[in-house]
Amino acid sequence: MTSATTARLPDDDRLAALIGERYRNSQHIGADWNETIETLLSHRTVRDYLPKAVSDDILHLAIAAAQSAPSSSNLQAWSVIAVRDEARKAKLNAVAGTQRQITQAPLLLIWLADLSRPRRIAADQGSAADGLDYVESFLLGVIDAALAAQNAVVSLESQGLGTCYIGAIRNDPETVARELELPEGVFPVFGLTIGYPDPATPAAVKPRLPQTAVLHHERYDRSRRSDDLRHYNTVLQDFQAEQRMPRIDWTVQVKNRIGTVEALKGRHLLGVAARRLGFRLK
Amino acid sequence: MTSATTARLPDDDRLAALIGERYRNSQHIGADWNETIETLLSHRTVRDYLPKAVSDDILHLAIAAAQSAPSSSNLQAWSVIAVRDEARKAKLNAVAGTQRQITQAPLLLIWLADLSRPRRIAADQGSAADGLDYVESFLLGVIDAALAAQNAVVSLESQGLGTCYIGAIRNDPETVARELELPEGVFPVFGLTIGYPDPATPAAVKPRLPQTAVLHHERYDRSRRSDDLRHYNTVLQDFQAEQRMPRIDWTVQVKNRIGTVEALKGRHLLGVAARRLGFRLK
Repeated sequence: MTSATTARLPDDDRLAALIGERYRNSQHIGADWNETIETLLSHRTVRDYLPKAVSDDILHLAIAAAQSAPSSSNLQAWSVIAVRDEARKAKLNAVAGTQRQITQAPLLLIWLADLSRPRRIAADQGSAADGLDYVESFLLGVIDAALAAQNAVVSLESQGLGTCYIGAIRNDPETVARELELPEGVFPVFGLTIGYPDPATPAAVKPRLPQTAVLHHERYDRSRRSDDLRHYNTVLQDFQAEQRMPRIDWTVQVKNRIGTVEALKGRHLLGVAARRLGFRLK
Repeated sequence: MTSATTARLPDDDRLAALIGERYRNSQHIGADWNETIETLLSHRTVRDYLPKAVSDDILHLAIAAAQSAPSSSNLQAWSVIAVRDEARKAKLNAVAGTQRQITQAPLLLIWLADLSRPRRIAADQGSAADGLDYVESFLLGVIDAALAAQNAVVSLESQGLGTCYIGAIRNDPETVARELELPEGVFPVFGLTIGYPDPATPAAVKPRLPQTAVLHHERYDRSRRSDDLRHYNTVLQDFQAEQRMPRIDWTVQVKNRIGTVEALKGRHLLGVAARRLGFRLK
């Protein structure tokens, strides 16, 4: 999909415009534009949707994209549940603290790390599947689910739909598991709201940290890069002002988000919940 | 990028060809083809590369795509290290059990869950960052890294490069951390080899489980779906025969891969390693 930002630009200038919007610094990349790159760099989180259903064809294509993502040892240790029922969506929304994007979205996907399938397959062959009882296997399922979900997001955005990940279903994974009747060994990793963006409230591209803050060469660079953080605080305050959001330094947002146990909103019990849901996490 | 499979087909038939290659069953999806969908559905793991360097521009574009992926609460709790030095690559390859794709690839990215950056940011403001000491925060960093990495993969494939995830760096995360001088609170999630595919050994699209095996509606469907597994065993044996690989049922592969602690190749100690690397995992 070609974004509104770049629709009228020649190909050569599109990449520069997209990079400019993402970083708002002097980052230059001398590579070729293509439509997939445009889809990726144009990503924005969409929280306001039209009351228009998402068809099964769109969903099935997103799942085909998800299944096309790499999977560790081809174990395919994930599953996904499509939730459209309003009553069920409301119950899941209560876990997430009631977010407008869940209320509005015609489709909510719950992505699952699924070790119940491999365990069942092993059990059918008389194996106790001892390898599944470790932190590693939990992680493997989470990573498989994340790679799959991100491919679905890219597929959906290429077709003009908007999405928003919902990490807040992890505030209470056991309630989510009960509501969705998850078998032992299945963990809800995150939700994903999906719908057609409401043009009345267009979403913006959120600027990110300078590349120098995340990309290292040969070894981790421990230098403080305080310039990067200062620059990013300024960029994000500009973004907040444009969006008529409260202005607050990113570094303060980070501190507030991870500074206390209370800020985790129940997720400090995630390890306990995972064990109760059948993950031994040895 | 348009794949060799579909280059000569009209747009209308391309999607059907791509879906056919991925599932090898009667799956039909009545959606519109676009170039991004083609990139996603054409994914194949590439393990043989030409001895041709990957430019900084290609790398920077992949990182821009990675940073354009969603990030939980915009914490951006990940980093990545680009490894090109042959001696360093060889040391990391030893951890992974010596894989030809690591030997051949001109560029190896190591994706990191990075809680050291938020901890440092909080510390600068006098906060102990208590929220980082939980399984949840480890998971958040892993998920952020996975979403970012998958966007990089899609970006690279859209430009004709090939990739292969290397989960086997988790065989010994502490050695990887020492080699890359990772600070406390940084965990190597997986590697990613990157290069130009060697046309002498073309990679194939690996068939996946039928959609009915992974996609559920409203609640988890516990029915056994043994037909799906039987069908997939047949499909994968056909694929193995075409690729001149040893023929073995997928269900047996799964059992072998997760059946015993030994099959984890050291990864049963991942929880211990993560704790030693500064994750409290409460």
